[in-house]
Amino acid sequence: MQFQVNAAQLQNELDKLATYSDVPSPAVTRIVYSDADLAARRYVKQLCRDARLEVREDAAGNTFARWIGDAPGLPAIGTGSHIDAIPNAGMYDGTVGVLGGLEAIRALQRAGFRPRRSIELLIFTAEEPTRFGIGCPGSRLLAGLLGESDGTRLRDSQGRTLDELRTAAGFSGPLSSVALVPGCYAGFVELHIEQGPLLERAGIPCGIVTHIAAPASLNITIEGEGGHAGGVLMPGRHDAFCAAAELALAVEAAAKSTGAIDTVATIGICEVFPGAVNSIPSRVRLTLDVRDTEAARRDSVLSSIRKASESIAENRGVRIQSDLVNSDAPAACDARLIETLSRACEAQGLSYQRMVSRAYHDSLFMARLAPVAMIFIPCRAGVSHRPDEYASPRAIANGVRVLAETLAELSAG
Amino acid sequence: MQFQVNAAQLQNELDKLATYSDVPSPAVTRIVYSDADLAARRYVKQLCRDARLEVREDAAGNTFARWIGDAPGLPAIGTGSHIDAIPNAGMYDGTVGVLGGLEAIRALQRAGFRPRRSIELLIFTAEEPTRFGIGCPGSRLLAGLLGESDGTRLRDSQGRTLDELRTAAGFSGPLSSVALVPGCYAGFVELHIEQGPLLERAGIPCGIVTHIAAPASLNITIEGEGGHAGGVLMPGRHDAFCAAAELALAVEAAAKSTGAIDTVATIGICEVFPGAVNSIPSRVRLTLDVRDTEAARRDSVLSSIRKASESIAENRGVRIQSDLVNSDAPAACDARLIETLSRACEAQGLSYQRMVSRAYHDSLFMARLAPVAMIFIPCRAGVSHRPDEYASPRAIANGVRVLAETLAELSAG
Repeated sequence: MQFQVNAAQLQNELDKLATYSDVPSPAVTRIVYSDADLAARRYVKQLCRDARLEVREDAAGNTFARWIGDAPGLPAIGTGSHIDAIPNAGMYDGTVGVLGGLEAIRALQRAGFRPRRSIELLIFTAEEPTRFGIGCPGSRLLAGLLGESDGTRLRDSQGRTLDELRTAAGFSGPLSSVALVPGCYAGFVELHIEQGPLLERAGIPCGIVTHIAAPASLNITIEGEGGHAGGVLMPGRHDAFCAAAELALAVEAAAKSTGAIDTVATIGICEVFPGAVNSIPSRVRLTLDVRDTEAARRDSVLSSIRKASESIAENRGVRIQSDLVNSDAPAACDARLIETLSRACEAQGLSYQRMVSRAYHDSLFMARLAPVAMIFIPCRAGVSHRPDEYASPRAIANGVRVLAETLAELSAG
Repeated sequence: MQFQVNAAQLQNELDKLATYSDVPSPAVTRIVYSDADLAARRYVKQLCRDARLEVREDAAGNTFARWIGDAPGLPAIGTGSHIDAIPNAGMYDGTVGVLGGLEAIRALQRAGFRPRRSIELLIFTAEEPTRFGIGCPGSRLLAGLLGESDGTRLRDSQGRTLDELRTAAGFSGPLSSVALVPGCYAGFVELHIEQGPLLERAGIPCGIVTHIAAPASLNITIEGEGGHAGGVLMPGRHDAFCAAAELALAVEAAAKSTGAIDTVATIGICEVFPGAVNSIPSRVRLTLDVRDTEAARRDSVLSSIRKASESIAENRGVRIQSDLVNSDAPAACDARLIETLSRACEAQGLSYQRMVSRAYHDSLFMARLAPVAMIFIPCRAGVSHRPDEYASPRAIANGVRVLAETLAELSAG
């Protein structure tokens, strides 16, 4: 259909949103429930009210801004993303899906479109794991994957609970009230920057996500035997770091051995104790992150790593303990929504490619409640989670056009 | 000669000294120039004054407590060790040579002995490399192996220079004033726990050191390429931690490949950047410590490691930079002092064996100034640099008796 996206206004709003930050521009730090986050929420809610959307918030601070349709009793069409940002991040991750979603709604309003189903913009609380050590607590709560007891279990690095922090931020009521009923949305579509280099490299303006890869993450502790780096001879050693090194190479080999390009495994943290140049490491703590688009393949990698751990522990006389922190199921996007997005790209004269989302998104959990799909737009050099993250106003406007076209079709259905 | 060692008092003093620590008992962390170190120094200096020793400190904080002999113009006899402790260490490494040295002097005093040559107890500043990344800066300065410019060159992990830190700790004056003249001591004898299991296993109370193994230490930095743990696929990675893992196993293999039991190599520190569960490591900093009793064999291990680094860097597309921090020549103990120690063991009715010191000691550098020798006593299971490091009061008293006997003979000469 015919509508105009106001790219300049949208850019102004993104720029303004970026000023709600704990660090100076161009970097953005906006931790959930911080003053910067709450100020940013106020700004976005006001923009939603200016667009005559009905705003409500749940007990966790998930925010819903609804354009009420002509058949308000039917399941709505959802769109949206998050506005929280990890320390020293950029200004496009998440925010493009929130303010771009709002602009898609305003473009439809300006064109005189009337939705049959309501269209709802969602701003999820805390997509980033920064504060609570687990990604997407907001959408996990919506999907019923977290509940009442997690309000006291989840804590930030200073020991403050989710319940304390959400209450201080003005979000009260039982956490159990947050979960939504599957079927409450007829579809959910998230617009997001790619956070990878493929679209830019191929010169293609739109990515249509077919699968969202999901991580399993583990904490691994290796207990060996310390000692003086001069005094303990090589045959008598149980060096925890040498064991960690062997495990790291086993992890790499396991990820490569599936033959699938979608399997990745990363040891991102390695802490060595006691950590002195002349001390044999007695203990090493590692984190392991394994991702795949297929849960079964990811589980087989985890199983290979477990076997390698056991054999390293036995051969080296060390103890290796692995604790699963989280293991989320990958999500497949909905075939009908993928088709709708493809038609929307064609209607807007934009080329597209189907692709995998390798990063974590709230759509992973919204998939528990509704058919989901995602639109990716190119970001410069694939850079994300850095101050130099960048998506051009034109790239963003393209994504908004596809989203508006899609919302129009879905809300009419 | 006849004298009494007060083992109970010495144990009380060792226990008290262990309370000057940044971690709770039984672990000891006492980093040079920290509040814990300065408080421990005050305690030891007071004990020395109580024994009527003349205490002086040099510009680096090396401490000298002198029992002035009847011929004060003659070169003195030195003994002593260090009281600094690596993070989470035990309470005997170094301290037995300091407080045991003091008790040897007191035992001679109590027996009415009068030294001809002065006897001087030395407490070396920072035998451990924890703070400045180099072992024995105190005795290196005494030996003239470090000097004025190292005051601004040597820095701790927070960038503070040796000069800043020693000044803040109350040690001022030019570092060039620290060096001693070769010949200023007629002999130096260090009492120390073995830090290895040989004496305990053999049931022998005294080890007489013939050689001190020579350490070389390096700082290694690996620069790879960071990125999102989901977004960057395995074939496109240049993971600095995987490269570090491969290097760690190459180091282990190189040390084992010499066929000599005396070759040891250790990676004691591994720091990973940025250090987040969902980030591919972009940079890793390692320390490497290689020791041997033969410099040539040690150098061949270093050369194997260098070759492995080059091949890992090429295969993985990472940069590996190695900086030699220090490479010290092994020291041979003085034949006459070894004979004196043997006679002292016999006089005290204690069996002994000659052995190699595989650990690093201030005696390595005192050997540049004077004939040196070392007395080792057994420690439980050979454990050192750990909170469960232990030497029995009886084992310590045996060492003190041999030391007192030796000091008596040498100071009379």
